[in-house]
Amino acid sequence: MTVSRRTMLAVSVGLGAATMATPLAASKAAVGRTERWGVFELKFDGPRDGNPFDDVTLSASFSCDGKVIRVPGFYDGDGVYRIRFSPPEMGRWQWTSRSSASAMDGQQGSFNCVAPSAGNHGPVRVAGGYHFAYADGTPFRQIGTTSYSWALQSEALCARTLATLKAAPFNKMRMLVFPNVESVAVNPFVRTGDGPKDWDPTRLDPAYFRRFEDRICKLGALGIEADVILFHPYDEKRGYNDMGRADDERYVRYIVARFGAYRNVWWSMANEYDDVKTKTMADWDHLLQLVQAEDPHDRLRSIHQITVYYDNRKPWITHSSIQNGAAVLDDVRAQLHRSFGLKPVVFDEVCYEGNSTLRWGNLTGEQMVERFWWGLMGGTYVGHSETFDPDRNADHSWLGQGGALTGSSPPRLAFLRKVMEDGPVPGIEPIQTWWNYSIAGKEFEYYLHYFGADRPTRWPVVLPGRKGQPMNAYRLDIIDTWNMTVTPVDGLFQMQRHSDYDFHDPARPTIDLPGRPWLAVRLVKV
Amino acid sequence: MTVSRRTMLAVSVGLGAATMATPLAASKAAVGRTERWGVFELKFDGPRDGNPFDDVTLSASFSCDGKVIRVPGFYDGDGVYRIRFSPPEMGRWQWTSRSSASAMDGQQGSFNCVAPSAGNHGPVRVAGGYHFAYADGTPFRQIGTTSYSWALQSEALCARTLATLKAAPFNKMRMLVFPNVESVAVNPFVRTGDGPKDWDPTRLDPAYFRRFEDRICKLGALGIEADVILFHPYDEKRGYNDMGRADDERYVRYIVARFGAYRNVWWSMANEYDDVKTKTMADWDHLLQLVQAEDPHDRLRSIHQITVYYDNRKPWITHSSIQNGAAVLDDVRAQLHRSFGLKPVVFDEVCYEGNSTLRWGNLTGEQMVERFWWGLMGGTYVGHSETFDPDRNADHSWLGQGGALTGSSPPRLAFLRKVMEDGPVPGIEPIQTWWNYSIAGKEFEYYLHYFGADRPTRWPVVLPGRKGQPMNAYRLDIIDTWNMTVTPVDGLFQMQRHSDYDFHDPARPTIDLPGRPWLAVRLVKV
Repeated sequence: MTVSRRTMLAVSVGLGAATMATPLAASKAAVGRTERWGVFELKFDGPRDGNPFDDVTLSASFSCDGKVIRVPGFYDGDGVYRIRFSPPEMGRWQWTSRSSASAMDGQQGSFNCVAPSAGNHGPVRVAGGYHFAYADGTPFRQIGTTSYSWALQSEALCARTLATLKAAPFNKMRMLVFPNVESVAVNPFVRTGDGPKDWDPTRLDPAYFRRFEDRICKLGALGIEADVILFHPYDEKRGYNDMGRADDERYVRYIVARFGAYRNVWWSMANEYDDVKTKTMADWDHLLQLVQAEDPHDRLRSIHQITVYYDNRKPWITHSSIQNGAAVLDDVRAQLHRSFGLKPVVFDEVCYEGNSTLRWGNLTGEQMVERFWWGLMGGTYVGHSETFDPDRNADHSWLGQGGALTGSSPPRLAFLRKVMEDGPVPGIEPIQTWWNYSIAGKEFEYYLHYFGADRPTRWPVVLPGRKGQPMNAYRLDIIDTWNMTVTPVDGLFQMQRHSDYDFHDPARPTIDLPGRPWLAVRLVKV
Repeated sequence: MTVSRRTMLAVSVGLGAATMATPLAASKAAVGRTERWGVFELKFDGPRDGNPFDDVTLSASFSCDGKVIRVPGFYDGDGVYRIRFSPPEMGRWQWTSRSSASAMDGQQGSFNCVAPSAGNHGPVRVAGGYHFAYADGTPFRQIGTTSYSWALQSEALCARTLATLKAAPFNKMRMLVFPNVESVAVNPFVRTGDGPKDWDPTRLDPAYFRRFEDRICKLGALGIEADVILFHPYDEKRGYNDMGRADDERYVRYIVARFGAYRNVWWSMANEYDDVKTKTMADWDHLLQLVQAEDPHDRLRSIHQITVYYDNRKPWITHSSIQNGAAVLDDVRAQLHRSFGLKPVVFDEVCYEGNSTLRWGNLTGEQMVERFWWGLMGGTYVGHSETFDPDRNADHSWLGQGGALTGSSPPRLAFLRKVMEDGPVPGIEPIQTWWNYSIAGKEFEYYLHYFGADRPTRWPVVLPGRKGQPMNAYRLDIIDTWNMTVTPVDGLFQMQRHSDYDFHDPARPTIDLPGRPWLAVRLVKV
């Protein structure tokens, strides 16, 4: 299947070009300077007549040192059109606009892309096959959360959510473009009447998306990736997820052109794609290919299922996004997902901490944290959310609308994140899951063993290793993942051959453990 | 990638056509009659000069009631060429030969395809998405074993293996075409000298393959499927697995033309494909596509890995063939493999029962049987083998050469097969693995719960079920999977709502169990 690179936006009259610092670029830089991985924006004044979403095309080619990147533009309402570009390299970028409106065609300009400011590590990419890192090489240790419609709530509630996130360990937020619960912003398309289905799919409402991108940028300012979910099955009343092919394409192109330059954006094509009754697998393949073709910034792309696993080996998928409540109850189950997709795995939905009467929303804090640890041991990543509400209404909880967090898992997830950040780059690898060591890390350098709900009083310090492999000496820490303590064990473990398959220190073959649940052991080469 | 349908075999002179009853067809039927799913064979006398494997093409088109099937032929040595066809439907089949040798081109004939004899259920096909059934609809309950080079041993040892199989529960045998251990038959290609690599890949030795197909037919006579493995990584000395593209194609085409008409043949492209260093993923894809294109009988196709899972969603794969020692240690791990491939799953290698010092060859009988049960609970199928040898040499064991079985698992696998045969058609489905019921069967009709190594003394009889679903009444059996007993529990369980998600019988919410390992419970609707 091929996907056209046609863009639906353009300008008709007079170039009112300007370069704008965006919220992510963070400063009102002088015209002509944009930092690497920041946003360079062109603004055009154009036609208001007809249907600007369908009648005109607009794009610009940006070039620097022989590299040429074509960037689509979008209509922002009131006769204003924009093109947003996030430069991947420093240097002088020249641009030329192309438009179906002759007055806008062939405009030119340039800007300097300068070094990124502190805290700007660039977009997150796949690293080491199964992990993530920012473009500058800094590892990205995914500790995600989900608040589906937080961005669509009142300014006050959004501000409360952001304040919560500022104090929380989460560095990725899953969020829906279309509302799934009671929201303030509910009209992504221009309304044509009073009924829930009275809207015109050919005319997007720029105010809705301007509001949404403000939330993306505010997450970015907190160092949080925005995992933007384009479709979901939860709103048959309004039917935004049930448009036809041409309307889906217009919407997807708009999202990609409008949001894609923000370096903290990830694309999640759908939540529970297999519950959207009006789309086939071929539709999802097509829409993902469309995003891949239309997005010059090549943001991460995934799709999330309820029952039928998407084939994450398809080339337009960058990582597996999985819903499964049982898959992160041990390391082997988690690791298998890597073996199948051969890409990074994020378990974006593993049931939620909460007090819901629904069985997917009443994990204890301990259970929520345990899932993260098993995911880590399988070389994968996990996502949090919670469903606490006085009335046990998940729609009003963090999962639905955001606000405050009341669960007990977040401090422990902050502790976990610190363990991850102190660990190997780019991430923790499972080690010989076939043989049930339940050990992960980086062979001959760093090992974690996690005990889950067991209450061990002793552990044989045995590491996988074969003849000729480095035996090394290790220091050992006992980690209480719930009480958030790290207790070093005195002395070293000097490994020697134990069997054809294992190493241990014959002078101290076991260690004593405190008999509590949620323990882990860490060995680091000295 | 497209695959040519060219065949490399042909005849040059004089048609000595004959129809032959094959061992599978079981009787010396009169010329002109072949039973459905039996083998109709054409024999041609042809040229011995040049290289018959490369210089001539031969095929025949068989037609009946508007259906036309093109069948490739093969060279059988000494100037003899054959075409084998297994008719899928009853009726009068007309055939016409095509050959690059003009004297052989355009020969015609016909035969009657008659009803299958007793015990001929046809080839095994995928059924119900995740299971198998014979072409006549009879479920095929896979209880596989592996004896890699049994077919390449002496006549006496082969006879001993067949006698063992006759008394064993196995209905599928994995077997290599190329030897992996010490064998009597080791020359699939014509030898050109005394060194291990002195052979000519352009000239197959028909005697080697005639011998191999005799073994296929003898398995068929026992009702055992032959899972024929075309390549493997265990014989770098001779290098049969390290030929180039053209030689691989010649070999694959020969195998398919020669063996494909036998209805008990399955194609396994390789054992541990990812350890064959001389072939890439593109090579495997190509060879599987070649088999698909060249095989008019459309036998089952799989490929088996050691580490890197093949993408079993690829359309030329009929079922996942998996090696994993940890994946069948619970039902969820097993079931996940269905979710990834969306096809039947056979765990063809899960470690072996035996006394080997190698960690993959020393399961107890209990552990071997446990893996089969967990696989069943995950809606998948498992394979057995054993590595008992007085000298602890796996090459001399059942796994390597066949012979006798000494392990304790086979009678328990026979018992398991009976449980499967008494169960739902086409097979056991996992039920809500997400929610850790560890229940499988057919919803509202038949349930199994397996306890593995646990020693339960009590079990709450709770079945998943929601408002509006049939609650039904069930009789219950306690199954001791090791001692091979089925103990009915008196009375019925009349289900009622227990929670939003569950049913139970409030009059008898639990049952007592005997506190032994390897128990299961079976509920059957009355």
